[in-house]
Amino acid sequence: MKKRVITISREFGSGGRSIGKALAERLGLAYYDKELVKQVAIESGFDPGYVEEHGEHAPSKSRFAYSLGVPGTPGVMRGMSSSDFLWSVQRDVILKLADKEPCLIVGRCADFILKDRDDCLHVFIHADPAFRADRIVRLYGESEQSPEKRLADKDQKRKINYQHFTQQEWGMSQNYHLSLNSGVIGVDRCVDLIAELFTRLNADEEA
Amino acid sequence: MKKRVITISREFGSGGRSIGKALAERLGLAYYDKELVKQVAIESGFDPGYVEEHGEHAPSKSRFAYSLGVPGTPGVMRGMSSSDFLWSVQRDVILKLADKEPCLIVGRCADFILKDRDDCLHVFIHADPAFRADRIVRLYGESEQSPEKRLADKDQKRKINYQHFTQQEWGMSQNYHLSLNSGVIGVDRCVDLIAELFTRLNADEEA
Repeated sequence: MKKRVITISREFGSGGRSIGKALAERLGLAYYDKELVKQVAIESGFDPGYVEEHGEHAPSKSRFAYSLGVPGTPGVMRGMSSSDFLWSVQRDVILKLADKEPCLIVGRCADFILKDRDDCLHVFIHADPAFRADRIVRLYGESEQSPEKRLADKDQKRKINYQHFTQQEWGMSQNYHLSLNSGVIGVDRCVDLIAELFTRLNADEEA
Repeated sequence: MKKRVITISREFGSGGRSIGKALAERLGLAYYDKELVKQVAIESGFDPGYVEEHGEHAPSKSRFAYSLGVPGTPGVMRGMSSSDFLWSVQRDVILKLADKEPCLIVGRCADFILKDRDDCLHVFIHADPAFRADRIVRLYGESEQSPEKRLADKDQKRKINYQHFTQQEWGMSQNYHLSLNSGVIGVDRCVDLIAELFTRLNADEEA
C-alpha cells in the first residue's frame, strides 16, 4: 500500500522536528508537530489552559482509571486521570488528521496510535548525548540546568509518557520502520534518506 | 571519519544476513558472518567442538565469574563460565578483523564490541513476526516446531546473550546508527539504502 503519512518520534535535541519540517516541505505533506496537534485539540472545543497544563505531563495515575470509560465531553471524567483524558482527545485528533490528508506528524505517540494503518511510515530519530547537548544550547540557549540534565529530564518524561500510553518501550527499533542516529548520519542526510525511501516505496507501489 | 566497517545485527528471519552478504559484495568489503567468526576463533587454536557447543548458547552463569580474570589459554578458566570465555575469544577476533581490513560483520554483538571506533556503521535489521515466519519456512523449511515458536526461541536466546555480554537492551535504536524494518522496506531496498548511505558518508568525508 502507498504511504501517505509519516510519523516522527525523536529524542530531545536530535533534530527530529527540523527533519520532520524539511521532509513535509519537500514531500508536500501537511505538517503537524505537537504544538499543532494541541492546537487542533483546542479547536475541537477544549480549554487551552487545560490542554497546556496536562498535555506534556507524565501521567500520575495508573492505567486502571483508564479502563473505567471514555467520556464524550471534557466535563465527564468517569475516573480517568487528566492525562489519560487528554491522551484520548489527542489520539482522536491524530486518527482524524491521518484520515483527512497526507501528512507528517511529530511526537505524541503517533507511531503507536497509527500502528494498524498500512499507509504510514514510522521513523525514530536519536543521537548521542554530546551531539544533542550541543544542539539544544545552540538552538534554545543556556539555562540554569546543564544541557545534560535537560536532556535526561526530557528523555525520562517522554519515556514514561510513551510507556504509560502504549505499554511499549520508547526507542525500541521494532516500534518503527526506520531509526536513524542524526549525529552520525547528519540532519540533512536524514532528510534525504527518508524522502528518497518514501518516494521509492510509493513509486514501486505504482509500478 | 571515513567508515570502513559495517556491523549488522538482526532478528532471526529478517534477512539481515542476506542484506549483509549483498552489501559486502557491492561495497567490496570482506564478509564475516557468525560462522566465519567462529572459524577464525577455531583457527586461533580453539577446539571446534568447544566453539560449536558454546558459541551460540545463552550464558548460564552470572557476570560475577567474569570479573575473576581473563585467561590466556583455553585451559585456564579462573572462574569464567565457558560462554564468558568464548565471548572474550570472539571479541578479540572481531577487534582484530576490524583492524585488519574494511569488512562487514554479522552478529556476535559486533556493534557493542566496536562501539568505541568512529569508523564503523552499526545497523540493526528487524521485521514483523509474520514476515519472518514466512521467510524462515521458505529458506530453512518446516520443522517440528511452529515457525512462530522458532522465532520466539531464537529471539529470546539472542536477547539474553546480548544483555548478558553488553548490559544493553537488544534492539534498542540507540545501540545502532540505522535500524530498518526489512518487511516494510524490502530486503533489496535495505541493501540500496545502506550502500548509498555508506558511500555518501565516505564521499562527504573526502570532500
